Amino acid sequence: MENKRPVILVTNDDGITAPGIQNLAYLMKELGDVVIVAPDSPQSAMGHAITIAKPLRLEQVDLYDGIASYQCSGTPVDCVKLAVNKVLHRKPDLLVSGINHGSNSSINVIYSGTMSAAMEGAIEGIPSIGFSLGDFSHDANFIPVQKYVLEIARQVLANGLPQGSLLNVNFPAVASFEELQGIRICRQAVAKWQEEFDERVDPHKRKYYWLTGEFTLNDPGEDTDEWALNNNYVSVVPVQFDLTAYHAIQVLNSWKFNL
Amino acid sequence: MENKRPVILVTNDDGITAPGIQNLAYLMKELGDVVIVAPDSPQSAMGHAITIAKPLRLEQVDLYDGIASYQCSGTPVDCVKLAVNKVLHRKPDLLVSGINHGSNSSINVIYSGTMSAAMEGAIEGIPSIGFSLGDFSHDANFIPVQKYVLEIARQVLANGLPQGSLLNVNFPAVASFEELQGIRICRQAVAKWQEEFDERVDPHKRKYYWLTGEFTLNDPGEDTDEWALNNNYVSVVPVQFDLTAYHAIQVLNSWKFNL
Repeated sequence: MENKRPVILVTNDDGITAPGIQNLAYLMKELGDVVIVAPDSPQSAMGHAITIAKPLRLEQVDLYDGIASYQCSGTPVDCVKLAVNKVLHRKPDLLVSGINHGSNSSINVIYSGTMSAAMEGAIEGIPSIGFSLGDFSHDANFIPVQKYVLEIARQVLANGLPQGSLLNVNFPAVASFEELQGIRICRQAVAKWQEEFDERVDPHKRKYYWLTGEFTLNDPGEDTDEWALNNNYVSVVPVQFDLTAYHAIQVLNSWKFNL
Repeated sequence: MENKRPVILVTNDDGITAPGIQNLAYLMKELGDVVIVAPDSPQSAMGHAITIAKPLRLEQVDLYDGIASYQCSGTPVDCVKLAVNKVLHRKPDLLVSGINHGSNSSINVIYSGTMSAAMEGAIEGIPSIGFSLGDFSHDANFIPVQKYVLEIARQVLANGLPQGSLLNVNFPAVASFEELQGIRICRQAVAKWQEEFDERVDPHKRKYYWLTGEFTLNDPGEDTDEWALNNNYVSVVPVQFDLTAYHAIQVLNSWKFNL
């Protein structure tokens, strides 16, 4: 019986040269044959955007030792579509996205390019995981979380994932492995961004706005990703792409429409 | 007791000059005071993208009789954030997005800029509806669906929506009101896009790719939006932004992680 090494697709939204994807790709080499297809420039906060109004470029690059790497001009979702159709010509056995420089916990999952790449993988039937670290800086320390990344990826390769789901894995920013308290399977916390726009005037006297905001947690639950991260746990939220609010169907069916 | 007219925010992803938003805005004038904040250019398939790496422009324009209108350089989600914070300085009583030129049923909800604007409204606690018509053409016929748009908006204004949900309303492309069979409250059908990339070579001998694909329905259910639309019903899917796959939590809790 042949025991072939799994094919692992690695992508992200911070761009192909980000330290987070470098860390992730080298870790995945321990588990299988790794191919990187990632954006040629940062694509944070791109949500589930795809590129339909302009053509895409895809170029092989020599960035990482012993890892076939391709950079793409499109969004993270474009990268996944191109990887499956034009690079691998098959579904990979695992898709991992990240490690994102910055948290994608709670409502951030909606805006995240990292998670949209993983969601696209799941839609295509690929076991998919998004990894994110709660530190936005370029020189974020990924070493404390390496064992967790490997073990979670190993489990997904071994067990698959429940139908229609993917994983949103977030790590607290810590200085050492020992600080991490273990893994918690969580639900997405109820939270939102309280927007503020920084209003400025350009040299031509026209106004412009920078989007800023404050993260606001509205959820005291201890089963949430935010609670886990605030207590130095690694949060694992199973995520789905069936967005139907089933609890609302009965309510809507009671409405009397006058047409 | 004061009976003030509701404030209704209108946005879309096809751009502020699209016939779909014009139709929607004039219809909403029957129900309240309308303000348009919409992209200055088409933003289809932008998913839940937001603009953080460059500043945003917001400009009042005189496009529609008796309707305060603002065009924004950003994505549909940016439009909603700017509308609430810099135009209205309050939450509107209703947010409507569309009417999209093209369907946003089933998996398309994930990629849709129309629906991401409505989802952003819901995250901010605004009763929100995305409307889409299954006809991509610029001169799509919105007349047959007008009564439905008005009645659904009226019901949402009167009843609100269940906590954490918004509505994804899709219309089949029909020639007359009489062809429509009524409203069906539905779940999101299981479907995906089977991608194909149209590979070409530019005058400089470099390859480029156009994203194309075929819509593939994998769901024989008669309670889905696809079934409703294929049978000339108006589909109404309640959508949520809590993406937690609750059914998967128990499975993941049974995994033994070795750390």
